[in-house]
Amino acid sequence: MRIGELSRRTGVSVPTIKFYVREGLLPAGELTSPNQASYGETHERRLRLIRALLDVGGLSVAAIREVVAAIEDRDRPVHKMLGAAADRVVPRYGEGAAEGVAEARGAVAELIARRGWHTHADSPAAEALAVALAALDEIGHGDFAEVLDAYVGAAEQVAGADLEYVARNVERDELVESVVVGTVLGDAVFAALRRLAHVDASGRVFGTGE
Amino acid sequence: MRIGELSRRTGVSVPTIKFYVREGLLPAGELTSPNQASYGETHERRLRLIRALLDVGGLSVAAIREVVAAIEDRDRPVHKMLGAAADRVVPRYGEGAAEGVAEARGAVAELIARRGWHTHADSPAAEALAVALAALDEIGHGDFAEVLDAYVGAAEQVAGADLEYVARNVERDELVESVVVGTVLGDAVFAALRRLAHVDASGRVFGTGE
Repeated sequence: MRIGELSRRTGVSVPTIKFYVREGLLPAGELTSPNQASYGETHERRLRLIRALLDVGGLSVAAIREVVAAIEDRDRPVHKMLGAAADRVVPRYGEGAAEGVAEARGAVAELIARRGWHTHADSPAAEALAVALAALDEIGHGDFAEVLDAYVGAAEQVAGADLEYVARNVERDELVESVVVGTVLGDAVFAALRRLAHVDASGRVFGTGE
Repeated sequence: MRIGELSRRTGVSVPTIKFYVREGLLPAGELTSPNQASYGETHERRLRLIRALLDVGGLSVAAIREVVAAIEDRDRPVHKMLGAAADRVVPRYGEGAAEGVAEARGAVAELIARRGWHTHADSPAAEALAVALAALDEIGHGDFAEVLDAYVGAAEQVAGADLEYVARNVERDELVESVVVGTVLGDAVFAALRRLAHVDASGRVFGTGE
């Protein structure tokens, strides 16, 4: 199809599509004449993925470029490739991070050992957890650590369901895409569900005042 | 204490502190002379909260301003106040949202009814869930809905733990702060844990290739 048709099908404007190609998020179309390129289903699917990661996942163009690179890197074993894709969608924290991170790192390493998780204590996710726990401690919510086990149990439950879903998609391309989608959009789904469950639980604890 | 001391204690620069006061995130200090203001523990605590919401929660200055307004609004019943605070930290989606949102809204309303949750199907959280589900459907991951029940169960578990934690903090100010902190930083904690659990589960399903 031509770029105009691709634009109509996905609701993404032609200049935006061209921007994604220049930024390396979307492969260029196949040239059918010096001024015309042809696009296929791969382009359509990738465009929808880009929009979902941007609009719902809140990822930056740079982060999406790294995700696309992970999807297209065909030389890694599956487990490593999935890990690389997942690492790239972990939020990174700036200079302003809390002071007590070193102590929190120790707590995270202890947690990983206690649950017997086969994962590294120096991965981006472990670092993100340490930063969040240190921030909680710094603002006087250090005893949040006492309810952490409920979070850990819930995370294992969700991760199990995610992998079950991912394992159904046998194609390598779809596999990575599923992980990225599941990680980014799964966060959005879980956060929304948690808020809904909060309202319900809060009404029961504090009364609805109605 | 003077502004210089507040800056040293929190690691936030003096110009940034002044910016937060101008933006309405931080109450002004008490004037002790025409050119000097005095700051107390409330300022220190609020500053740490602002930094955590900015650096770890990724909230915008405008979103933090709304959160602060919810903390300072003393006329609402507790359940309503908590709801208002929580609504303000739900991500909002732009024009680019998926087309199938109307259909997804129906699925969300059905889910809320099925779980017997006392919450509204038109709350920002319900809308955020509908947008995320519609985005998944649009990129060909509509069957993600089949693993949604694992997410729902995990969300109920985490929300129960959150409310248990929040109910310990009897002061009204601390209550709202706990909800905001728990909602924003709790998302960060859960997302990090989920990624760690993914690595563990992925190693078991696909082999670690080591």
